[in-house]
Amino acid sequence: MSVAHAGEFGLIARVTARLPEAPNTLLGPGDDAAVVTASDGRVVASTDVLVEGRHFRRDWCSAEDVGHRAAAANLADIVAMGARPTALLVALCSPPDLAATWAEELADGLAAEAVLVGAGVVGGDMSASPTLTIAVTALGDLEGRAPVLRTGARPGDIVAVAGRIGYAAAGYTVLSRGFRTPKLLVDAYRRPQVAYLAGPRAAVAGATSMIDVSDGLLADLGHIARASSVGINVRRDAFVVPAQMRDAASALGVDPMTWMLGGGDDHAFAATFPPHVTLPEGWQAVGAVTEGADVTVDGRPYRDGPAGWDHFRAAGPQS
Amino acid sequence: MSVAHAGEFGLIARVTARLPEAPNTLLGPGDDAAVVTASDGRVVASTDVLVEGRHFRRDWCSAEDVGHRAAAANLADIVAMGARPTALLVALCSPPDLAATWAEELADGLAAEAVLVGAGVVGGDMSASPTLTIAVTALGDLEGRAPVLRTGARPGDIVAVAGRIGYAAAGYTVLSRGFRTPKLLVDAYRRPQVAYLAGPRAAVAGATSMIDVSDGLLADLGHIARASSVGINVRRDAFVVPAQMRDAASALGVDPMTWMLGGGDDHAFAATFPPHVTLPEGWQAVGAVTEGADVTVDGRPYRDGPAGWDHFRAAGPQS
Repeated sequence: MSVAHAGEFGLIARVTARLPEAPNTLLGPGDDAAVVTASDGRVVASTDVLVEGRHFRRDWCSAEDVGHRAAAANLADIVAMGARPTALLVALCSPPDLAATWAEELADGLAAEAVLVGAGVVGGDMSASPTLTIAVTALGDLEGRAPVLRTGARPGDIVAVAGRIGYAAAGYTVLSRGFRTPKLLVDAYRRPQVAYLAGPRAAVAGATSMIDVSDGLLADLGHIARASSVGINVRRDAFVVPAQMRDAASALGVDPMTWMLGGGDDHAFAATFPPHVTLPEGWQAVGAVTEGADVTVDGRPYRDGPAGWDHFRAAGPQS
Repeated sequence: MSVAHAGEFGLIARVTARLPEAPNTLLGPGDDAAVVTASDGRVVASTDVLVEGRHFRRDWCSAEDVGHRAAAANLADIVAMGARPTALLVALCSPPDLAATWAEELADGLAAEAVLVGAGVVGGDMSASPTLTIAVTALGDLEGRAPVLRTGARPGDIVAVAGRIGYAAAGYTVLSRGFRTPKLLVDAYRRPQVAYLAGPRAAVAGATSMIDVSDGLLADLGHIARASSVGINVRRDAFVVPAQMRDAASALGVDPMTWMLGGGDDHAFAATFPPHVTLPEGWQAVGAVTEGADVTVDGRPYRDGPAGWDHFRAAGPQS
């Protein structure tokens, strides 16, 4: 059965029936709007959109995979503020001949990823469109903490990362060359494993700035550097290339550092911490904040590969 | 200059520079997420998506018009809960050759509509796409009140509407027949004039249920009837057809009641109130809640025109 055959209201009923309840949801789908807790009188909110052919391919990813990825991209933005995600809202634009099961499995993936952080899928919208498009908004709770912005990095701060880095970009390259293994890398592209606890931990530890690595580590550190009016130097020897990534890179003739420094889809986190802070669990130092205005690798500009993508200019694996 | 030439980050900078500050915005665009006040520890949230060719046409509406309409559709959902809108987030998917000025003027329209209710445009996302698509999420504040749901209508309640009704549907018919006047109706389709104060007023007055009329009055009253397990009867003589609508209907050979009972894009509000309540300013009684399960007009099923649209099944003027 297609989404057109199920009908808008039929499809909404089929999808919402599959969504689990979540603790912060005061009113879920089915009315004009949802109501979600915002315990400290503030709500954190972010929107990310995924377009077929640009952010995902149906022959590479199942509907559940796309749901996981769409949720992860948005939940990571909330976590990068030092907040705990509470809710997702989802707008699905789909060709009328899309299988209704695809929409249902997308909802399953969204809900399953949201459950990892205790968030619910609380609302959404559906429309026909020639282009399969998924727009997700995530909400979050700062639990009384100040948000960790991009503007607070100071010279002398430690630069650290949390979570997998380069895996998804490697998986994207593997898929784009027509391969389906190594499974570790391909699966990392299909369903990122996001270190959701890293953001609130960094906030509690006193992180001076933080960002979700979605454009690529160097590009995103560039966002922090510009916002904070500082330079950032990354040490190449801080990155250990995992064995499977090294082997895949060798087989494909790629420098694996281009995946680790330029890839985004893992939704790792990058942050800066005051010197002498003990980094919280899951965080690893990779460099330092400097005077100046540039992002460098071992003190030099990085010219070995792309540092990130522009969504209007280049096709890429970004979400 | 096209959006592709401006580039993602250039375009975001151009658009965000045009957005006015808003009182509830604690952190606006430019970081991983925005932070907005939620004064009573809860946030109301709703998402609506507009797809070119389905919800708007660029030859009928300016970019600013589309911005006004996209904002209004979402703000009305918040108001229909009895809440005050605080913020909008916007995801724009656009063909790479779209003029950057179109995106800027879209932002102007979104911001200008949001300002009417004191809300800010606090964040967003941009992506290339073959299909011009605008997904908006609105947030709101219940100010300590209970949300007004669709489930609370009781037999004997008064059914009332607030705001213009049928104007936008008439304007859509006028445009679809190739005309550009009467201006009153065409402008009503291009930029709805939403009675934003009506929702909180209804909540304060004790409304037992409320809905944003987006699918058409009878269809949306049907949503209340089903959710509340009641019937609803509407009196045809409660609707006065304005002179310009009557003249346009006569010229086009249309029964104007099909616009008033079946059209949606005005974003009027329908609500039920306990009997003997004095209706708040801007609300007008149009019928009564009954035992039963059907929506009727003067006690009979309505068969003179479509009662609303399904977004997967029929092209229509709905947003």
